[in-house]
Amino acid sequence: MSIAGNVGLEDLPRICPLISRRVQSAVRVEETRVVTVGKVPFGGPRPVIIAGPCAVESREQTLAVARAVKDAGANMLRGGAFKPRTSPHDFQGMGVEGLRILSEASDETGLPIVTEVMDPRLVETVCAYADMLQIGSRNMQNYPLLVEAGKSGKPVLLKRGMAASLCEWLGAAEYIAKEGNLEIVLCERGIKAFPAGEYSRNVLDLSVIAAVKTETFLPVIVDPSHATGVSSMVESASCAAIAAGRHGLIIEVADDQVGAAKPQCDAVQAIFPGTLKRIVQFVDSRVEQSWLRKAHAV
Amino acid sequence: MSIAGNVGLEDLPRICPLISRRVQSAVRVEETRVVTVGKVPFGGPRPVIIAGPCAVESREQTLAVARAVKDAGANMLRGGAFKPRTSPHDFQGMGVEGLRILSEASDETGLPIVTEVMDPRLVETVCAYADMLQIGSRNMQNYPLLVEAGKSGKPVLLKRGMAASLCEWLGAAEYIAKEGNLEIVLCERGIKAFPAGEYSRNVLDLSVIAAVKTETFLPVIVDPSHATGVSSMVESASCAAIAAGRHGLIIEVADDQVGAAKPQCDAVQAIFPGTLKRIVQFVDSRVEQSWLRKAHAV
Amino acid sequence: MSIAGNVGLEDLPRICPLISRRVQSAVRVEETRVVTVGKVPFGGPRPVIIAGPCAVESREQTLAVARAVKDAGANMLRGGAFKPRTSPHDFQGMGVEGLRILSEASDETGLPIVTEVMDPRLVETVCAYADMLQIGSRNMQNYPLLVEAGKSGKPVLLKRGMAASLCEWLGAAEYIAKEGNLEIVLCERGIKAFPAGEYSRNVLDLSVIAAVKTETFLPVIVDPSHATGVSSMVESASCAAIAAGRHGLIIEVADDQVGAAKPQCDAVQAIFPGTLKRIVQFVDSRVEQSWLRKAHAV
Amino acid sequence: MSIAGNVGLEDLPRICPLISRRVQSAVRVEETRVVTVGKVPFGGPRPVIIAGPCAVESREQTLAVARAVKDAGANMLRGGAFKPRTSPHDFQGMGVEGLRILSEASDETGLPIVTEVMDPRLVETVCAYADMLQIGSRNMQNYPLLVEAGKSGKPVLLKRGMAASLCEWLGAAEYIAKEGNLEIVLCERGIKAFPAGEYSRNVLDLSVIAAVKTETFLPVIVDPSHATGVSSMVESASCAAIAAGRHGLIIEVADDQVGAAKPQCDAVQAIFPGTLKRIVQFVDSRVEQSWLRKAHAV
Repeated sequence: MSIAGNVGLEDLPRICPLISRRVQSAVRVEETRVVTVGKVPFGGPRPVIIAGPCAVESREQTLAVARAVKDAGANMLRGGAFKPRTSPHDFQGMGVEGLRILSEASDETGLPIVTEVMDPRLVETVCAYADMLQIGSRNMQNYPLLVEAGKSGKPVLLKRGMAASLCEWLGAAEYIAKEGNLEIVLCERGIKAFPAGEYSRNVLDLSVIAAVKTETFLPVIVDPSHATGVSSMVESASCAAIAAGRHGLIIEVADDQVGAAKPQCDAVQAIFPGTLKRIVQFVDSRVEQSWLRKAHAV
Repeated sequence: MSIAGNVGLEDLPRICPLISRRVQSAVRVEETRVVTVGKVPFGGPRPVIIAGPCAVESREQTLAVARAVKDAGANMLRGGAFKPRTSPHDFQGMGVEGLRILSEASDETGLPIVTEVMDPRLVETVCAYADMLQIGSRNMQNYPLLVEAGKSGKPVLLKRGMAASLCEWLGAAEYIAKEGNLEIVLCERGIKAFPAGEYSRNVLDLSVIAAVKTETFLPVIVDPSHATGVSSMVESASCAAIAAGRHGLIIEVADDQVGAAKPQCDAVQAIFPGTLKRIVQFVDSRVEQSWLRKAHAV
Repeated sequence: MSIAGNVGLEDLPRICPLISRRVQSAVRVEETRVVTVGKVPFGGPRPVIIAGPCAVESREQTLAVARAVKDAGANMLRGGAFKPRTSPHDFQGMGVEGLRILSEASDETGLPIVTEVMDPRLVETVCAYADMLQIGSRNMQNYPLLVEAGKSGKPVLLKRGMAASLCEWLGAAEYIAKEGNLEIVLCERGIKAFPAGEYSRNVLDLSVIAAVKTETFLPVIVDPSHATGVSSMVESASCAAIAAGRHGLIIEVADDQVGAAKPQCDAVQAIFPGTLKRIVQFVDSRVEQSWLRKAHAV
Repeated sequence: MSIAGNVGLEDLPRICPLISRRVQSAVRVEETRVVTVGKVPFGGPRPVIIAGPCAVESREQTLAVARAVKDAGANMLRGGAFKPRTSPHDFQGMGVEGLRILSEASDETGLPIVTEVMDPRLVETVCAYADMLQIGSRNMQNYPLLVEAGKSGKPVLLKRGMAASLCEWLGAAEYIAKEGNLEIVLCERGIKAFPAGEYSRNVLDLSVIAAVKTETFLPVIVDPSHATGVSSMVESASCAAIAAGRHGLIIEVADDQVGAAKPQCDAVQAIFPGTLKRIVQFVDSRVEQSWLRKAHAV
């Protein structure tokens, strides 16, 4: 019995030849292609920490969080100006005004920015402000958007769709690569499975990362905030992701100083800067260990 | 423990007030809003059968299948001119040329057309040829596309995303409704779950339909082709869907006369016109029964 | 990359040779093995309707429901004397006393009984009262229990586990067959997948049935009560299952006359006898149609 | 719309009062109950490493692996004498003879033994040889077995069912606790979800652990072998589990010295002793770090 649409890992050389490790002998086995954003290298010896608010909600909130994540040791700033929301009646983001605020936060802190783009007609605008484009889970298979992101030449953070197989995810990355843009960082952010909603938002799938590393040379990071959806779980998910050898994290952080305005987006999954600092320390200790191990090995 | 993003049916009046049965008292309990495409009414006493090829691959193939599905008793024609494919190296559809072919097939057979649009910049173009816009599973949460589809005023067939909860699906429909367009037909097409790939492509979720009918007044149909992915399963899935009270079916049909050219898309899930005829007869017998039952009830 | 435990339909001849259609040429293609319980044949031209209370809770309740389902046209009586419950502090069933009550209900109505057994040490006891043993979802891979059920020679109703692949399910049936007992009826009762809990208890997987029929000659029925978990969805799920060609249904029915005592088990998924009557009528109309169709075909 | 069987974390005090942290104030917040097997404490400051062959296949193989895992620094020995297999025609384990071999391996190495029991009639026999009883995933809701394991008073390793919610899992543990046995260690081993089979056997759900720790005081470990099903993924999954704060690991190890006899069970997910040694070193480094951190904190 043959089933339409059934593909497996053995089909990857056909689905995504440009990013398939098996096809591209230029990148050696075990090696990752380094994707550099500003001066931040994804896929190098040190995991990259991206942190920031879920959404840009005001200049004050964004600058405060940006300073806090910089102080905590993060390498890049995240924040949504265009927000994909389940209901059209919910806050949809500050738009271009939000991009300007992010840009100001970047200028002040020196942290490069990644922000989501959802509309192919807005890729150029977002590129004018951001250092890296984020394609969110809902748009992983929005092919016209992927093509525009590819054409832009900007580094792209491509999140895995909530029900995407590895073949579908790498196929989506190939749409960007086909336009001549190999500056792609993949991001696992949890999948939909039966326990979702009982104790966590999604199910963080760490096994996919080992498979990603086998099948492609693109760097891959983890989003522990959306994977768990519960702030008290973010630290342990972050440490798990780093211990398992991922190239970085993207984490939602809220400002605990700003008491008044309650964040509108996903407040219960955002951690505070103090927790972020502990995660950065864990990353540091891991890097040191690896360095020592290699030093001893010589 | 509170989880970000967790919403339930009790949140629907807030998520999608415009299409929520509980909010909109204008449409009476148990009643469906009739959405008319050409002269074909969705949500009326008779289920609507949409049939046609997966993709428009040539003028000959499309006209041949269009005639065959007309003969078999289908009410509308489907066919993809812009095809969302897992790999960018696969056939992406004939584009505008495909729309022209569909239009010719519609003129000849009198069947209205539904065809997929993936790019918000192409909504106007597709509207010039099609009677109904299809938003596919991969784009269920492509909000800029939903907004353009809403603005167009055209009837929209909104497929459920592969991992979409009911709240997310109805939230997506609300994006269309918010632009003043209530000409929306929902379409269940199977979800991703663990058995997918063992004996079927996806898992057809018939229970969601009862929930759809409780929560909204929009008509809802079923796509047994993508739900099963196996041509020999399409007939029984179609009968199951109709028996359970859905407002229609959208089915992929291949032409068994055209021997030469092998269809490129999803051939193993397409049925032949003879099977379609049996499905139409099943629908007829059900309508008769309901009519008789009501007649006896008087 | 090879994965432990990965098996597919192509492995069925090795996993379950005794019940594999491909191996056992004795049973002709398209034909089902008829399993007879009392005088009730599963797998014959007429779908079998099993109905009754979730649990035997008292003599009065059980006799009342038994009479009501007999009147409504059901062919067999179900009811739990040993109940598998999530918490050990919940009602665990009336045990042997419950079996005696079921037996009395069977004597009075003439309906054969199916009831669950969970403990291999109790198979003999349950066999003394029941006409058919039920192995529940939680125990689908309780192999010592399957072996005892096989040795007993009694007909067995084997429910699918909540996360069982087709290979695992048929492998479980093979444990019974290996003891020389081919009196097996399979039962699909919904699987665990992401939407479970939002609008239904589980996801009814009708596609598996077509695959079951291809791979084995054993009859297969559907449990719409546990599949949906919502009484208002049971009728449409039942009709869907019958239209799709299954060999029967097992349905939970509550007595609407007994006002006082609230059923302890799964009350919200039990239907009332009036709804059961409509389902039986639907089955009758389908059987008639098939008969007419074949008569016309001659 | 109310759904049968729907329970959530708020129901845990009713489902499992004996092991619920919220109910049992005797065990302080953040504290874990220490379960000691032989002299090995689960839930103490040092994660426990259980390792050994999938199945006991011969005296030579078992002794060789036992010595190797002892040398690598494991704390306990695992090995199956009674094996739950998908097909009854596959090797079912060496039975009591296997238990004797495990016992000899334990005597020689000093490592306590954990081994699976599937039949309530065999609990006493297995208790005569083993230091800890394992209840496997397939039997997580085999309540008569849980009751016998509870009555035995032996420490029990309770694996999570492949589709078990947290409520169902803790409800199963409560069956053991109700018999007066609180010597329970929980074990996450991967769940069934859509990607299973594409690149891994199951999906390791690390988020459930944080929820386990919030809801109960029982220790919880992780089985990276069954969670991934791919030997090359076991090390990174092990490190992830430990970094995320679990109380131990249970890992399948094969002997790379024994060339001749190919292991029959799950060979592709077993690691070699060299890899186990690296995992133990990772655990050591983590324990040291925590110790240093606490020392500095004073």
